[in-house]
Amino acid sequence: MQINDCPLCLDAAAPALWRDEQCRVVSAADADYPAFMRVIWQAHVREMTDLDPASQQHLLRVVLTVERVLRAELSPHKINLATLGNQVPHLHWHVIPRFTDDAHFPDPVWAARRRAGVAHAIDDARLKAALSAALPP
Amino acid sequence: MQINDCPLCLDAAAPALWRDEQCRVVSAADADYPAFMRVIWQAHVREMTDLDPASQQHLLRVVLTVERVLRAELSPHKINLATLGNQVPHLHWHVIPRFTDDAHFPDPVWAARRRAGVAHAIDDARLKAALSAALPP
Repeated sequence: MQINDCPLCLDAAAPALWRDEQCRVVSAADADYPAFMRVIWQAHVREMTDLDPASQQHLLRVVLTVERVLRAELSPHKINLATLGNQVPHLHWHVIPRFTDDAHFPDPVWAARRRAGVAHAIDDARLKAALSAALPP
Repeated sequence: MQINDCPLCLDAAAPALWRDEQCRVVSAADADYPAFMRVIWQAHVREMTDLDPASQQHLLRVVLTVERVLRAELSPHKINLATLGNQVPHLHWHVIPRFTDDAHFPDPVWAARRRAGVAHAIDDARLKAALSAALPP
């Protein structure tokens, strides 16, 4: 359901690392955090509590599968999960592997930069394969 | 299970707005965000994917009950949810009702302040009662 000019609605059909009818996994395309992933609910829903419980659990399952794959591939120091949506109030989750030498550690990625930071990359093909193996198509 | 000097382990028995054996809901005691709540897993666990699926769902249920109560009580512009743990790697969630006139909107609360900001308060007694009504003791 596209609402006005919501960028996450307009982008709904763009290539994704994984998708089903309910949600899609895409790279956040963040130069500092090349393994920063987003899980986007396909419908234009504002808050987690606007979803029914089965949908909440499905979205959590996808978010945590991304977390699990990122941990297995990169062994980050910590995973950060967040759903904010202040600027784009269309339900989406940030899944961010954090490292002690990244640009903002130990602060959130939205705080002031602390250093140039090492950009820890991930192999997209391996990520796609791992998501497909862990989640139903 | 207390690990070294983890502040969330040391604080496990402190008064809470709601608690069960697995987790507790406390105020973040943030002067800019008096309705900013935290949901803290009682055991010293690092990541969501370190919990079994039933525990993940239980924690999500508590987090989203806090979200639902904050929405009902305050009608915020947006809810922000996050589990970061870069500084305190003991699983806990931030549940933050956001308003267009708060100190950081539309940025995350961890970004640079934009204005003095209005601190939207919540009645703790009403919050406790609503959590108790919505969740098993």
